[in-house]
Amino acid sequence: MASPAFDGFGPVPGVDVGQSFVDRRALAAARVHRPLQAGICGTAEQGAESIVVSGGYEDDDDGGDVIIYTGQGGRDPDTGRQVRDQVLTRGNAALVTSLTTGAAVRVVRGSGGARAYSPVSGLRYDGLFRVDDCWSERGRSGFLVWRYRLTQLEQAGSTAQPALPAPRQPMGQQAPGRTTVTTQRIVRSTAVADFVKRAHDYTCQVCDVRLTTPTGAYAEAAHIRPLGRPHCGPDIAANVLCLCPNHHVLFDLGMLAIANDLTILSGAGDFHRDKIREVATHQIDRAYLTYHRSHHAHLEGHV
Amino acid sequence: MASPAFDGFGPVPGVDVGQSFVDRRALAAARVHRPLQAGICGTAEQGAESIVVSGGYEDDDDGGDVIIYTGQGGRDPDTGRQVRDQVLTRGNAALVTSLTTGAAVRVVRGSGGARAYSPVSGLRYDGLFRVDDCWSERGRSGFLVWRYRLTQLEQAGSTAQPALPAPRQPMGQQAPGRTTVTTQRIVRSTAVADFVKRAHDYTCQVCDVRLTTPTGAYAEAAHIRPLGRPHCGPDIAANVLCLCPNHHVLFDLGMLAIANDLTILSGAGDFHRDKIREVATHQIDRAYLTYHRSHHAHLEGHV
Repeated sequence: MASPAFDGFGPVPGVDVGQSFVDRRALAAARVHRPLQAGICGTAEQGAESIVVSGGYEDDDDGGDVIIYTGQGGRDPDTGRQVRDQVLTRGNAALVTSLTTGAAVRVVRGSGGARAYSPVSGLRYDGLFRVDDCWSERGRSGFLVWRYRLTQLEQAGSTAQPALPAPRQPMGQQAPGRTTVTTQRIVRSTAVADFVKRAHDYTCQVCDVRLTTPTGAYAEAAHIRPLGRPHCGPDIAANVLCLCPNHHVLFDLGMLAIANDLTILSGAGDFHRDKIREVATHQIDRAYLTYHRSHHAHLEGHV
Repeated sequence: MASPAFDGFGPVPGVDVGQSFVDRRALAAARVHRPLQAGICGTAEQGAESIVVSGGYEDDDDGGDVIIYTGQGGRDPDTGRQVRDQVLTRGNAALVTSLTTGAAVRVVRGSGGARAYSPVSGLRYDGLFRVDDCWSERGRSGFLVWRYRLTQLEQAGSTAQPALPAPRQPMGQQAPGRTTVTTQRIVRSTAVADFVKRAHDYTCQVCDVRLTTPTGAYAEAAHIRPLGRPHCGPDIAANVLCLCPNHHVLFDLGMLAIANDLTILSGAGDFHRDKIREVATHQIDRAYLTYHRSHHAHLEGHV
């Protein structure tokens, strides 16, 4: 089968959520997940099209609508055990790109996975998920692994997910309107986040930028220890930073971290401040800063 | 009725999408839309809770799942005609805040609105919409009006919209997890946008910032003349800028505009470049820059 490097995001026409496939060859023929062996299909530039969750990695954790997925590589082909650090190339890099673009990823479950959510035999297409967190850590084996949290996208019915058309059109003059949307990045906020933004008057704690809008100012709130599984950081002010959108992106990707004395640590260049700004009404709990740093083990060399 | 300044976003428990109300008093009693007269309920700080679309403004344009809504104020109370410029306060400011936070807005239609989508009599709760564009322009009357595009959020069934809980909890120690999510900002991308980002090597055309990520770089693409109704800008490279997230926010809100000689015009402070950067492989069509500037008539004094 001739496989282009990139074939398109989103649902495959004619394939329903919940549809079964007898083996990887049938799955590839249906273009749901094209490689016959690799667990991740995609490129660093475009993002991941699809993954197979089959329980092959000791650190995987399938919670149904939320999957903690381990990257590829570093395993002994005979024993399946992790014997080397994973590196951020190929499929692993593709899933990081999916995080930054928000592209939907097709998820296929195999019979080897978590019993509660996996098919008894063969493989099953389980619909679209979004990569909403990624980090690197020392896995159970002691080696560096890349981990990703994928959250299921809402679907109206088992076969009615919104079509996310593949970016196949040329760069010509057509004006395709809404159907050209392929990816999205989502920035969430909470009531606690709003409190922190107000405490800092919407001024970035890293660079002092304050983005003026017609009605006030715009800033984003970054949870230091992320909300949701597996981090379960609390939604309290001591776990939130007020950042400009640029530094929010860098912080979430681990390109920017904060030492416990509030020194700015970065693998992304210099900043004009040495330490982030604190204000009397908003104190940061250092335990969350420690969690954020250890949570991005790939930064060991940088920060 | 005692009305707090802010009562909460999202669905009202016990009220179904499509539910009818005989008059504004019944609508207010159900807490779907609390003011008895104003068309917009909300505050500049929190955003808009709800609006009533009743055809009162000459510039409204109800397309069903997409509504072009005109802000409040500036009308003669006797004739209903626009006799003054609208200003960006109260409800008008609340809808701008909803754009920047992404908060869901309850939409109620009254019998005075567009025939195809409005109830025959009384009022009807029509579910949650998101403000995804706002601008100011000279209305049919010649006076400045604020306009907003609201797009209906997907819903699984007529009564099954996802609950967006109100930000009512105190700033305490509880760790409420996913249910604290109240708002989100969405940054979309397209294949054309990806082309432009690559042409600039993910470097902001306004400030030359290039955000480094573990797998490359991160930038956002801004459509100069927006996609979708009513602007119907084309999804072509000549209508796209490569921006960092900070300048994307400012550009979309009209705090930053570009002259046809590519000079940066701003009501949001100085920039270290005088003109945006162009590259040989990506030329900008000046007609879209002109559209963007005229589309933000409130900037006349600034830029």
